[in-house]
Amino acid sequence: QWTLLDWKPRRSDMLVDPFGLGKIVQDGLVFQQNFSIRSYEIGVDGTTSIESFMNHLQETALNHAKTVGLLGDGFGSTEAMSKRNLIWVVARMQILVNRYPTWGDTVQVDTWVAANGKNGMRRDWLVRDGNSGETLARASSKWVMMNTSTRKLSKMPDDVRVEIEPYFMDCAPIVEEDGRKLPKLDESTSDYVRNGLTPRWNDLDLNQHVNNVKYIGWILESSISMLENHELAGITLEYRKECRKDNVLQSLTAVSKDAKGWPECVHLLRLDSGAEVVRGSTMWRPKRINNFGSVGRIPTDGM
Amino acid sequence: QWTLLDWKPRRSDMLVDPFGLGKIVQDGLVFQQNFSIRSYEIGVDGTTSIESFMNHLQETALNHAKTVGLLGDGFGSTEAMSKRNLIWVVARMQILVNRYPTWGDTVQVDTWVAANGKNGMRRDWLVRDGNSGETLARASSKWVMMNTSTRKLSKMPDDVRVEIEPYFMDCAPIVEEDGRKLPKLDESTSDYVRNGLTPRWNDLDLNQHVNNVKYIGWILESSISMLENHELAGITLEYRKECRKDNVLQSLTAVSKDAKGWPECVHLLRLDSGAEVVRGSTMWRPKRINNFGSVGRIPTDGM
Repeated sequence: QWTLLDWKPRRSDMLVDPFGLGKIVQDGLVFQQNFSIRSYEIGVDGTTSIESFMNHLQETALNHAKTVGLLGDGFGSTEAMSKRNLIWVVARMQILVNRYPTWGDTVQVDTWVAANGKNGMRRDWLVRDGNSGETLARASSKWVMMNTSTRKLSKMPDDVRVEIEPYFMDCAPIVEEDGRKLPKLDESTSDYVRNGLTPRWNDLDLNQHVNNVKYIGWILESSISMLENHELAGITLEYRKECRKDNVLQSLTAVSKDAKGWPECVHLLRLDSGAEVVRGSTMWRPKRINNFGSVGRIPTDGM
Repeated sequence: QWTLLDWKPRRSDMLVDPFGLGKIVQDGLVFQQNFSIRSYEIGVDGTTSIESFMNHLQETALNHAKTVGLLGDGFGSTEAMSKRNLIWVVARMQILVNRYPTWGDTVQVDTWVAANGKNGMRRDWLVRDGNSGETLARASSKWVMMNTSTRKLSKMPDDVRVEIEPYFMDCAPIVEEDGRKLPKLDESTSDYVRNGLTPRWNDLDLNQHVNNVKYIGWILESSISMLENHELAGITLEYRKECRKDNVLQSLTAVSKDAKGWPECVHLLRLDSGAEVVRGSTMWRPKRINNFGSVGRIPTDGM
């Protein structure tokens, strides 16, 4: 699960980054961290997977929260949120990828939060090539407040608003929201159906929920033929329900074409019971020539 | 697949580590790299998984090879190996874990190579806590030379030996070899059988083989009840055959007890055809009290 944010007054000694764990920049409202892409983060194409991208987004969100001093008091909530048993949960995630980096590349991730309507929070990310500054990806997420006792969504109480608002950037989302409603799929409207998907032990987070990032693997499983000739250009995910270790999932995909004739897909992950876990959409482009260069020939052979 | 090593003369400018990608230490024969454990490398217990450990081992092996200047000329072979179409392939891997680190911990990995018999290579790793120096894990692997044209194993030719030997450390393995032969399992001698395991897209490496590290997930799948109450203390893997994306695997496990009464398992991953992919054994100990501390309560709740 994506983790939840809290905000404490900034401290000037947080402005340095001696251990490569990131630092606060831009007057305290943006958190920046560099990642060196590791060999095990690259896949068949020699480039990072979308999951690796999302892992880096998750890591910067957490480190942002940790750096501003939140990780002592439980569920990443402000003091007022804690008193009211409120936490942040992610509802929607949209990512656009221009180019996937490869092993040894350094990427620089900037992240910040903003208000989303009256009761919500938005978290954005900008991922750039650490050397050239080229934009590799942009992402935007929406968070809502949930009461952990009732498991229901909550409005933002005034005392929470007072705590949080100083940490919100006042800016438009880095990804223009795709306002189209994600349609509801079923087997009759799907082109690909994959049944019987089950969590592996390592898909689970601390609370024995399936980690948000892992859903992507299941979504892409039902469009694996797409992966061979196309590159994922963008993904939108709407999180509806948690998935636990004993759940069995079905992954549905419907394929259409965009104005350029490139594939667009609509996705649904649902439980045996029919309950929707994640709705999603993906945009694809033809694969570029392998940009892995000579390194691409290294770890290929073997056992 | 684990990647393959090559050796070129050491250069003194490799002794610094400005980008956190590791450096050569100890008179040029040991490669050392620090890792900060990332949030997505920890699992249900709040600690890193054995897969994360193995990923770090793979990354240091590759960076060691890259640092000494091998990655220009193809399959990680010396010049003489390249001329003869020879590459290194991993045959056996043994890991002992004392303690699993958690999010934000820094680990220091040392790795080096040595001769293994007349024709093979050994690669060892020592993983330590970056702050206390405490040994977290030790690992040892054995590599053999394969001819990529014939797909057969090869003796080490004399001209290859001349190139490689200067880079071998002269020392005993860091993990004493468990000389017991791994027994052959079948369904009648197994306590747990899991069928129908299939690679996900992200399990594949550049050559559309299943990455060596991913096998562990399948091995542990068939002993998932063990994972809930025990911690993996050690694992031995013997790689027999490559697994490709269309393969379907069966994971077999037989459980016994060691002298302390703690579980020991024997594992087999095999194809539908019966062909053995990996033989393995695992050692377990009762779970310690959660050493994740207050951080353990953070990313738990949510959707």
